[in-house]
Amino acid sequence: MSGRLVVIGGDAAGLSCAAEARRADPGREIVVLERGREVSYAACGIPYWIGRLIEDRDDLVANTVEDLRTRRRLDVRLETPAERIDPEAREVLTADGARIAYDDLVIATGARAVRPPVPGADAPRVLTLRDLADADRLDTLLPAARGGRALVVGAGPIGLEMAGNLCRRGLGVHVVEADEAPVPSLHPDVAAPVRKAMARGCASLRSGTAVDALLPRADGVAAVIGGVEEAYDLVLLGTGVRPNAELGAAAGCATGEAGALRVDRTGRTTVPGIWAAGDCATAWHRILERDVWTPLATTANRMGRVVGRDVSGRRTPFPGIVGAWMSEAFGLGFGAVGLDEDDARAAGFAPESVTRTGRDRAGYMPGAEPVVVRLVFDGPTGRLLGGASAGGADVASRLHALSIAVTAGMTVADLAGVDLAYAPPLAALRDPLELAAAAVTGDAP
Amino acid sequence: MSGRLVVIGGDAAGLSCAAEARRADPGREIVVLERGREVSYAACGIPYWIGRLIEDRDDLVANTVEDLRTRRRLDVRLETPAERIDPEAREVLTADGARIAYDDLVIATGARAVRPPVPGADAPRVLTLRDLADADRLDTLLPAARGGRALVVGAGPIGLEMAGNLCRRGLGVHVVEADEAPVPSLHPDVAAPVRKAMARGCASLRSGTAVDALLPRADGVAAVIGGVEEAYDLVLLGTGVRPNAELGAAAGCATGEAGALRVDRTGRTTVPGIWAAGDCATAWHRILERDVWTPLATTANRMGRVVGRDVSGRRTPFPGIVGAWMSEAFGLGFGAVGLDEDDARAAGFAPESVTRTGRDRAGYMPGAEPVVVRLVFDGPTGRLLGGASAGGADVASRLHALSIAVTAGMTVADLAGVDLAYAPPLAALRDPLELAAAAVTGDAP
Repeated sequence: MSGRLVVIGGDAAGLSCAAEARRADPGREIVVLERGREVSYAACGIPYWIGRLIEDRDDLVANTVEDLRTRRRLDVRLETPAERIDPEAREVLTADGARIAYDDLVIATGARAVRPPVPGADAPRVLTLRDLADADRLDTLLPAARGGRALVVGAGPIGLEMAGNLCRRGLGVHVVEADEAPVPSLHPDVAAPVRKAMARGCASLRSGTAVDALLPRADGVAAVIGGVEEAYDLVLLGTGVRPNAELGAAAGCATGEAGALRVDRTGRTTVPGIWAAGDCATAWHRILERDVWTPLATTANRMGRVVGRDVSGRRTPFPGIVGAWMSEAFGLGFGAVGLDEDDARAAGFAPESVTRTGRDRAGYMPGAEPVVVRLVFDGPTGRLLGGASAGGADVASRLHALSIAVTAGMTVADLAGVDLAYAPPLAALRDPLELAAAAVTGDAP
Repeated sequence: MSGRLVVIGGDAAGLSCAAEARRADPGREIVVLERGREVSYAACGIPYWIGRLIEDRDDLVANTVEDLRTRRRLDVRLETPAERIDPEAREVLTADGARIAYDDLVIATGARAVRPPVPGADAPRVLTLRDLADADRLDTLLPAARGGRALVVGAGPIGLEMAGNLCRRGLGVHVVEADEAPVPSLHPDVAAPVRKAMARGCASLRSGTAVDALLPRADGVAAVIGGVEEAYDLVLLGTGVRPNAELGAAAGCATGEAGALRVDRTGRTTVPGIWAAGDCATAWHRILERDVWTPLATTANRMGRVVGRDVSGRRTPFPGIVGAWMSEAFGLGFGAVGLDEDDARAAGFAPESVTRTGRDRAGYMPGAEPVVVRLVFDGPTGRLLGGASAGGADVASRLHALSIAVTAGMTVADLAGVDLAYAPPLAALRDPLELAAAAVTGDAP
């Protein structure tokens, strides 16, 4: 196990992998092929640069190419898209016709934004926001659009982060969502505070509404919504992503959920010598006990490290994900962990749920905010399967706790009986988590 | 199981118990005897009223006496100290000579501040801060002392909360602590940010320093420290508390750690018909697997509810505590859960520990703050025994997570492998908890 390691993709999964492989073997030749002009940037931070909460674009770049080349001795090749993999010859063919031999190959090609099947979805001022090139394109349009109007299509977490940050940037923002409520992956009770936060901000939301067409105009885009034409300076699509799995699939790697490259617990694809990690690959779900496709930066980084070790001869199987995610929009945090009721039912559980609203600190402290907590559990056994939360100064507090409780196999009664720290400015005497769990058990201690 | 329930003590444990008993039996006669002039106040919030973060003193009172009497139909008797219990006759003798018969008796007499064995520790302007009467005494002195100097003796969590709030109120505050570092119950690595936060505030700290004497002066107190006399407008003692267990002990109830009333898992003392709950009683420690005395509002409320059910014929054994506490001073949150290394060693474990500093959100976000996390675990098995944290906007996030992990019996490797939610403004891609755990396992996924 050694020789040349080639990594395709220079962001979260690819560079975590390369860094870990370098740590394991200071002398190994490691080549990183990156399609774009930049590597090692914080994709999740991009909306906050658009909103200018982060003022300096350079802050999004964790390591410069020079650093990676000199300090980590990674042979980073920018603007070098991989076009084809020849697994027999163990070679990657790049767009400029070069053949790069590998001993071990890691595919970390990420995911791409999906444009909805709507006429005009690829018009010039209809944008997506995945990478720094997207961010630059959007950013150059914004000064002219200041005080103008933006349409965000899709009120999922990404759409809302974009909407919130376009508001911060001074635009009037309108969000349309085909589903009945914002953040369709959250139960409406948990999503309700999101709707409220938007109403307090500068954004309007129309849910249960689809965009029929997007028509290019001289200085913007006309959106046809419910038969009516509305004028916008620009349109941002938050309508989902899809794995960049074609390169691996063409090399013979089997695919799984959503067409992502199917990998085992150390990231090996079905083709010898080829690993995959990050948004282009599946990941093991601890509760569903199967491979799923849940593209998240956390998974990309964790699987990147697992693969970086496996290609170095150190097998540390990935314990899996519980699908923990969170998001911030309009000053409100929200997110979820584990299974919702539909997932749980499909997986053979008999789920029940409970929702309670508490507070993020003692009610008499200034700034105390409501916090919604929803728990999903298996009715017959009480086993916690998942949960969600919105609101309060520290949604991470509830979501981290839920990740651990779900991972540990706790029941809802176990959660109701946990001793949680308290101080009036920092938490409530009875945390919303405990209130929700106690509502199920009835007589929580 | 019914007849008259008498509860001695009208705050956290006593009223949680009375409320739960009322819920269980709408018709039962419930008498609450309170020594002071007020009941049902948020003792933990008092420092924040002193600091005027809470502007209205009434906000500290959760339920008025009138509410408790009419809505909950509790026979609340103020300024009625219980002097003696006659367990044979099943009577409580009050200071005014009345004999109050009970069928079930609950002792919830709390704890009192300890004055150190220093000459002058009971001088007029040497104060403690436990209840609203203490708070009023202090508050009347403050306008005159505005811009003046206060000495706080003891840099434990309570002393520091007082110091921080006296600063907020405009005093120059000096804290002396006999131990070498502030918050002696925390490892110095975790307490270091507390020291820094004080230095940024208006308070000075001298640790490893004892007060030799407190001398009353016409308009203040002279403190003799290291042989030198220093003038203060007032002195606040944060030098610990002791259980108000004498009443129960005199009635024959056995005592345990620190002289607190020893109770079983539903709060029964060793005398039939007498329960105890809250700061006057012991509580079951889940990790030590024995009864301990750890006076905390959370335990008081939880045990109060357990007792309120048990006196109503519904046995719901207390699952126990992990000693989770936290505190805020000078804008910094800090706290701990479970065992420190000394506790763990004394309990027969072979503890190891790790400390790491991470951040409370993505490093590139404005306002990102350092967070220290310390984990204590059993070396041979890796089982998490406790942890501590300081700093960041949401210390509750780490401490709640640790409470759950410790309660669930997770190992440090389990913790390193947990999938935690991430969003740049809300948490770090690798949470300080994960960084600390991964530092132990070396190759965390």
